[in-house]
Amino acid sequence: MAITGFTISTEGPGLYEFTGKVRAWTEGRGDGLLTLFIRHTSASLLIMENADPEVQTDLTAYFHRLVPPTTDPAMSYLTHTHEGPDDMPAHIKAGMMPVSLSIPVQGGRPLLGTWQGIFVAEHRAAPHRREIAAHFAG
Amino acid sequence: MAITGFTISTEGPGLYEFTGKVRAWTEGRGDGLLTLFIRHTSASLLIMENADPEVQTDLTAYFHRLVPPTTDPAMSYLTHTHEGPDDMPAHIKAGMMPVSLSIPVQGGRPLLGTWQGIFVAEHRAAPHRREIAAHFAG
Amino acid sequence: MAITGFTISTEGPGLYEFTGKVRAWTEGRGDGLLTLFIRHTSASLLIMENADPEVQTDLTAYFHRLVPPTTDPAMSYLTHTHEGPDDMPAHIKAGMMPVSLSIPVQGGRPLLGTWQGIFVAEHRAAPHRREIAAHFAG
Repeated sequence: MAITGFTISTEGPGLYEFTGKVRAWTEGRGDGLLTLFIRHTSASLLIMENADPEVQTDLTAYFHRLVPPTTDPAMSYLTHTHEGPDDMPAHIKAGMMPVSLSIPVQGGRPLLGTWQGIFVAEHRAAPHRREIAAHFAG
Repeated sequence: MAITGFTISTEGPGLYEFTGKVRAWTEGRGDGLLTLFIRHTSASLLIMENADPEVQTDLTAYFHRLVPPTTDPAMSYLTHTHEGPDDMPAHIKAGMMPVSLSIPVQGGRPLLGTWQGIFVAEHRAAPHRREIAAHFAG
Repeated sequence: MAITGFTISTEGPGLYEFTGKVRAWTEGRGDGLLTLFIRHTSASLLIMENADPEVQTDLTAYFHRLVPPTTDPAMSYLTHTHEGPDDMPAHIKAGMMPVSLSIPVQGGRPLLGTWQGIFVAEHRAAPHRREIAAHFAG
C-alpha cells in the first residue's frame, strides 16, 4: 500500500492532463487498484479523450453554458455569490463530475482505454494549485 | 479490512452531512482507503463545501431547475410517473451525482480538503432512511 | 486480489444491465471491495433502478434532450463534429456519469440495494463492444 499526492497548477476553466505523472507512480507496482481523490469542491477529476484537444474545449464550453456564471440572469435565484460569479457554478459542476476515480492496475499499468487520459477539470476562473491524493493497494 | 453501515434520515431534497460519523469510524485505523456506497437510486453521495450553507441550498435549487418534477410541462415526455412527480427526476439526479466515493486515509484521517464535507444528497420529497455501506482496507 | 474483464455489446443509446455477470464473479470471494472501470470515453457505468424498464428509457430520453446531437442548432458552438453528431454529446455525457464504481462486498455479495442494478450506459448510436475492467480485493 502506498499514498502520495499530486499538485496540478491550473489557469482558468479547462482540462489539465496528468496521466503521465500517474503512470510514472504506478510503474513497477504490479497488480492492484489505483484511487485518485481531488481535495477541492470547485474542481473535479475527469477521464476524457486525450487525442483531439477539441473534445476538451467543447466539454468546457458545454458546461459553461449548462451552468453559467451567476451574473447571467438565468442564475439570479442563486445566493452564494460573494466569492465571485464563477464560484457557485464551480461548486455545481463539482457536484456533476467525479471527485474520486478508481482504476485497476495490471503489471504496473493502469487499465486505461486507448484514448483515455486523466485530467483535472478546473471550474474556477483564477489560477489555482489543485491537490490530488493518490492511493495504491497491491 | 472492515465493513460497516451508516443510516442517514432525510426530510426532503437537500444535503445531509455525515462527515463526523465517517471520521469517527476511520479514527485509529492508520493508512488505507475508505469507500462509501449509497444503496439507493433516488439519493446520492456528494462531497461539497460545508462552510457556507448557501452552497448547499443553491446546489439543490439548481438541480431542481435542471431536472424539474414531471408535473412541469417541459418533462411531459417522461413515462415513469406513477411513483410521484419527484420520482423520475430523482433517478435522473442519481445518475448525475456519485453513488460511490473513495477517499485515501492517512493516520486514521480521510484526506479531505479543508472545506470538504461528506453528504447524502436527497432527491425525493418524502422522508427517507438512506443506507450507506462503508468499507476500509488498511 | 483478482482482476478480470467484462465485455458488453451495445446497440445504441440506452442502459445495458450486467449485474448477473458481476454477482457471478464475486460469489464465493467473501468480504472485500469490488471496483468496476469502463475503458471508454463515450459510454459510462451506472447504478440504476432495474425494476421498471421505463426508468431506463426515461433516463436515456432526458440525457438526449439535455445534450442533443451536434446537428441541433443549440449545439452549433461545438467544434468536434467530424466523428458524427452523436460523438461529442457522448463525451459530454461520459463526463457527467460515472467511469468507475466501487461497491463493498460481504459474503461474496455486492452490497447493492434492493432495486439497484449495474449497467453500461451507452451514449453512441452505432453498435459497440464495451470493455469493463473489474478488480476485487478481499
